[in-house]
Amino acid sequence: MKKLRRSARIVDLTQYFLNHPQELIPLSFFSERYQTAKSSISEDIDIIHEMFVEEGIGGLYTVAGAAGGVKFIPSISNEKAKEELEKICEALSNGERLLTGGYLYMSDIIGDPAVLRQIGRMFASAFSQDEIDAIVTVETKGIPLAHATANYLNVPVVIVRRDSKVTEGSVVTINYISGSTKRIQTMSLAKRSMKEGANVLIIDDFMKAGGTIKGIIDLLNEFNANLKGIGVFVEAEGPSERLVENYISLARLEEVNEKEKQIKVTLGNFFDKER
Amino acid sequence: MKKLRRSARIVDLTQYFLNHPQELIPLSFFSERYQTAKSSISEDIDIIHEMFVEEGIGGLYTVAGAAGGVKFIPSISNEKAKEELEKICEALSNGERLLTGGYLYMSDIIGDPAVLRQIGRMFASAFSQDEIDAIVTVETKGIPLAHATANYLNVPVVIVRRDSKVTEGSVVTINYISGSTKRIQTMSLAKRSMKEGANVLIIDDFMKAGGTIKGIIDLLNEFNANLKGIGVFVEAEGPSERLVENYISLARLEEVNEKEKQIKVTLGNFFDKER
Repeated sequence: MKKLRRSARIVDLTQYFLNHPQELIPLSFFSERYQTAKSSISEDIDIIHEMFVEEGIGGLYTVAGAAGGVKFIPSISNEKAKEELEKICEALSNGERLLTGGYLYMSDIIGDPAVLRQIGRMFASAFSQDEIDAIVTVETKGIPLAHATANYLNVPVVIVRRDSKVTEGSVVTINYISGSTKRIQTMSLAKRSMKEGANVLIIDDFMKAGGTIKGIIDLLNEFNANLKGIGVFVEAEGPSERLVENYISLARLEEVNEKEKQIKVTLGNFFDKER
Repeated sequence: MKKLRRSARIVDLTQYFLNHPQELIPLSFFSERYQTAKSSISEDIDIIHEMFVEEGIGGLYTVAGAAGGVKFIPSISNEKAKEELEKICEALSNGERLLTGGYLYMSDIIGDPAVLRQIGRMFASAFSQDEIDAIVTVETKGIPLAHATANYLNVPVVIVRRDSKVTEGSVVTINYISGSTKRIQTMSLAKRSMKEGANVLIIDDFMKAGGTIKGIIDLLNEFNANLKGIGVFVEAEGPSERLVENYISLARLEEVNEKEKQIKVTLGNFFDKER
């Protein structure tokens, strides 16, 4: 790259960090890229860090030493997260979304890339310290949320399938009992999709009793995975006991009145924890 | 926001545009945000545009007039696309990926957020002039690719389901014949998932004879959608005639020798067209 003025260098550094989240980049990489002294680049990085923090989108963190460098850790400020989640809860609190069985129609919200970016940043914020190796989700509606999160944590997504006629080579299959409908269901994970002993984060769209997530956990045990966290977009209050503990929810479906077509969605437990 | 130095303003402008692709933003929005004259912001925008073009990641385009503003249109340079796709083709050309029936194991590649960003930029580049309203894909493996593209085109993703016991309210269901296996299959799309007459782009992971995509097109006809384009990640050379024309493929599965476990994946038709 030709030698750049500071302003041009800052454009490139900013886009580079945003496109390489959670990656430790040696300062020498940039000093070669811009043919510029590391001291100047450190100054640029300070400016970018300050703005990222001010904007509440994360920060640039320096690791000293020979194997050191700079890492962009995306996050979202509590203030911004609250603002975004309140908009989402309002959109969800629409009686027209109510489907038979107490489910919520939310494919439009999960289909919107701008919303997904915010949700991804929230989950990434919550789990950025947990050294996640892979995000695991189950088809279908968990997939966009898992990928939105992966985009900020910079880890692969592994998809659990609901059938076993999967064109993915040999699979591990388990039967599980859906917590709310009490029906036996099947889920499968391709053997080659995950290394033994990986640190995993489970992301899903909806949790009622938690049967599906419990099923994923059982399946992950077959791969000797270490469960580092669970994130669900919407949790529903259920009459029965939860099969799963220690999850983070972004929103909570509190009241469902199928007859009157009324629902109420409030903030999830995301804000209950100090971060 | 407090008044900023140019370098800090450029950090914020860069991240703002990257996080709001394909959105027309009036200059007045920025002049209020930074309490700075539009002329200074125009200069900032020129600097950012130049770097984006140099980096091959897109450009900032100005629309004049009262309803005007600046829009970030993401793209990828042919050079960069080729470099990335050659890496992907090499990774795919591994005999170990061969599955029964001539399918390719590629969940690891489709699960990698860094690869998905590049693929998304390629499809977004190819279709950025087509005024797409929605991206349509079919579960399961098309979903990450569709969302990666949506993230740059800034349009929603609509997911066609392969079963009809879907918790999405009333659905339109069709039967179709898989082009290669000649089996009757079912796909469904929730009625409320798409407006009548939308301009749609179909994105999928794999196309052999094209039966699945033909099925999606038939289903979209029920919604009076205008098909603006088709993008597939990998096309396979088949003995039979293609059911679908005018698609863009990023990679092409050319030779499959199940016995010898050899495959060859080359660049798709993405580069055949002038852009």
